[in-house]
Amino acid sequence: MTESLTRFELPQSAIPTRWYNIQADLPRPLPVVLHPGTKSPVTSDDLGVLFPQEIINQEVSRERFIEIPEEVREIYKLWRPTPLMRARRLEKAIGTTAKIYYKYEGVSPSGSHKLNTAIPQAFYNKQAGVVGVTTETGAGQWGTALSQACNFFNLECYVFMVKVSFVQKPYRRAIIQSFGANVTASPSDKTEAGRAILAQDPDSTGSLGIAISEAVEMAAKSGGKYKYALGSVLNHVLMHQSIIGQEAMLQLDRAGDSPDIVVGCVGGGSNFAGIAVPYLRDKIVHGRNVRVVAVEPAACPTLTRGVYAYDYGDTAGMAPMVKMHTLGAKFIPPPVHAGGLRYHGVGSVISELYDQKLIEAYSVPQLEVFKSAVTFLRAEGIVPAPEAGHAVAQVIREAIRAKEEGTSPVILFNLCGHGHFDMTAYDAYFRGELTDYAYPQAAIEAALAELPEVNI
Amino acid sequence: MTESLTRFELPQSAIPTRWYNIQADLPRPLPVVLHPGTKSPVTSDDLGVLFPQEIINQEVSRERFIEIPEEVREIYKLWRPTPLMRARRLEKAIGTTAKIYYKYEGVSPSGSHKLNTAIPQAFYNKQAGVVGVTTETGAGQWGTALSQACNFFNLECYVFMVKVSFVQKPYRRAIIQSFGANVTASPSDKTEAGRAILAQDPDSTGSLGIAISEAVEMAAKSGGKYKYALGSVLNHVLMHQSIIGQEAMLQLDRAGDSPDIVVGCVGGGSNFAGIAVPYLRDKIVHGRNVRVVAVEPAACPTLTRGVYAYDYGDTAGMAPMVKMHTLGAKFIPPPVHAGGLRYHGVGSVISELYDQKLIEAYSVPQLEVFKSAVTFLRAEGIVPAPEAGHAVAQVIREAIRAKEEGTSPVILFNLCGHGHFDMTAYDAYFRGELTDYAYPQAAIEAALAELPEVNI
Repeated sequence: MTESLTRFELPQSAIPTRWYNIQADLPRPLPVVLHPGTKSPVTSDDLGVLFPQEIINQEVSRERFIEIPEEVREIYKLWRPTPLMRARRLEKAIGTTAKIYYKYEGVSPSGSHKLNTAIPQAFYNKQAGVVGVTTETGAGQWGTALSQACNFFNLECYVFMVKVSFVQKPYRRAIIQSFGANVTASPSDKTEAGRAILAQDPDSTGSLGIAISEAVEMAAKSGGKYKYALGSVLNHVLMHQSIIGQEAMLQLDRAGDSPDIVVGCVGGGSNFAGIAVPYLRDKIVHGRNVRVVAVEPAACPTLTRGVYAYDYGDTAGMAPMVKMHTLGAKFIPPPVHAGGLRYHGVGSVISELYDQKLIEAYSVPQLEVFKSAVTFLRAEGIVPAPEAGHAVAQVIREAIRAKEEGTSPVILFNLCGHGHFDMTAYDAYFRGELTDYAYPQAAIEAALAELPEVNI
Repeated sequence: MTESLTRFELPQSAIPTRWYNIQADLPRPLPVVLHPGTKSPVTSDDLGVLFPQEIINQEVSRERFIEIPEEVREIYKLWRPTPLMRARRLEKAIGTTAKIYYKYEGVSPSGSHKLNTAIPQAFYNKQAGVVGVTTETGAGQWGTALSQACNFFNLECYVFMVKVSFVQKPYRRAIIQSFGANVTASPSDKTEAGRAILAQDPDSTGSLGIAISEAVEMAAKSGGKYKYALGSVLNHVLMHQSIIGQEAMLQLDRAGDSPDIVVGCVGGGSNFAGIAVPYLRDKIVHGRNVRVVAVEPAACPTLTRGVYAYDYGDTAGMAPMVKMHTLGAKFIPPPVHAGGLRYHGVGSVISELYDQKLIEAYSVPQLEVFKSAVTFLRAEGIVPAPEAGHAVAQVIREAIRAKEEGTSPVILFNLCGHGHFDMTAYDAYFRGELTDYAYPQAAIEAALAELPEVNI
């Protein structure tokens, strides 16, 4: 019977009640976070300008498990548990000897995994008496998720949307607005950071780093009325996503399988961490034999070509400084369509795991991503978001290698979102208008040369 | 425990193995279908130009249950069973005493219920040795579903897309193309029907009736190479959708509830029939006390304002003639955004059920639809397709009445698809640019005056 199943469900009563915090099990503690002005370790008071206390506690906590509030679990029930699928048709299409499973986070109302952290972030902000939250969005997945979460908790929501996305993705803007959020094209004239950029370049199409600067500034100057919310990179964000991997583990148990390879795409690192951390815990604590594989765009190769150093999280240098794998905060990645992966750095947790050789990293060029995504959609029916297409590309590489080597690994990957709002990118791909980008060596070297000096 | 559940799952092993054919239980047989040229009852040979034999058999079958082929069930497993949700947050938002459940068909890869019939139609065509199928699409849900289904069975797929949608919905066109289908804006110069329309009006933006004429002509003139596939209206199409209601019944049993009111939106009638027919069977056969409610746009009030008469299925009079509730094949509905409900007629099964007073029908104006859809999306997180918004609007009417009357009915409705490709319509609604349309009395009267005469 199990043999012919495609989807492995969990009852809602099995939704995990705790997030897993990998900080508890890292071989060494994470490097401290620095204040961008003083370059000294940030205090709780420094962070309190941007985040409510419970979020700050979670950010630095080394507790292994943190209780998911009942109010958050109730909203998770709108779409969780998400399905775990056996990609039988993809296996057949590429003729692999591997078994391929994917956890599908695209069934969430926002269409991606981002809602897993947007809900608790909105909840903790509401609990702290905040009026609203500010944020940035590039591809739009995060803006959609946070606007939904704020709507659920009656919080105001201000989204600075990278201008090129604001113009090119009117559907994304519309869905964010339909949940009641206020969307501003960034750079804007609403903040000093935005006005400074516009003064230099009135035609600036924006970047994630600039939009973060604007959102941080708005919160910081609001006198406590607004706080700031980030959709990836930070420890608490990655921890909230651990619900993905916890569910996947239960579902794979039901399928009677255990992964040899776990794959996720990496921008800031949240969907990757989400699927991977429960397996990494077993690897660190119990010596489990599992390869954990991060995939990034060749045009923004943060792990594979970056350095592990302190850097700013944003362009204007207003966000806290974090030790992370980075290409330099001044690096503007080429305009690949996986907007969610176009960030100069990667979360501290991911960087530390990579530095400790607990995870592997590979980069994939854009055309291979779309080719793989089309193979997937024609086999499985689901259109992957371009970000998720990176994971698909790596999975296909692994599956083809397995066939060549005559092995039969079990591969698990995170299909973190659907591509319904990315059809213009697919359209361009089919018309032959997409390109790969040469490794942007000069731009990265220039950005790395400007890394801030710190005394820590 | 059950009390706090939001989603009611079924294991894949519980996917129904048979479609339910309500023709077996109708109080009287359906009126015969006529050849559009001779106006005599169509023969199997007449229909054989357009459809493979198994489809024709199903179209006229009075067998109560028809086996779902194993190959179809295997693909159903990519997304079925679909979830049944208790809309707890919507209930709270509108303060109703009713219990509201919805069956969510938007989780299908194509984003709507249409894939339920696209898969078997593609399968039977493939089995019959056909090279490809032709079809039309308006809103795009059907074109998406059929292109996916053809891709799964290696069939060519030719979609005539109503020109106004082709232009206004580039994402829809792109997703249809991404599954390998050939998409043509209709009216086109590829068919006589299309060329005749363009000769009269080179700027014609098309209509569903015109696109059907083009698709039917292409199949009819292909010498058997291509057949034609329709996404609604016909008996076999409605029967394939019975899987929705069968699953819902099993899931509601698990929830410990039984519906007093079952609601679906109606264009050709397939999603409505899908959710309703298992309950109608109980109503007809066992005298079950359940209200079954069809909802249509006020701008295209086929059931509430049309007549029950023989009419053409398409503009050029090439498709078979069916006795149905109709506004006249020459009626072009106002451009409401629920493109899937803009059809002059409604399926024979639905018409007969309405004539026998086994179902009720109501019409809802466009602004109420969007207002209700926004209430729903803010409560439940899911953006309804404008078509599904009609069901939501009626459910909210019923739920508010229940509160006023102090009753606590259990309401079940079919949320037949998501609105990810309809965000421009929501955008226009939020900008105050959508309007209601006056009941198009003169146009309907003119179209009804042109109803064909038949001798039957």
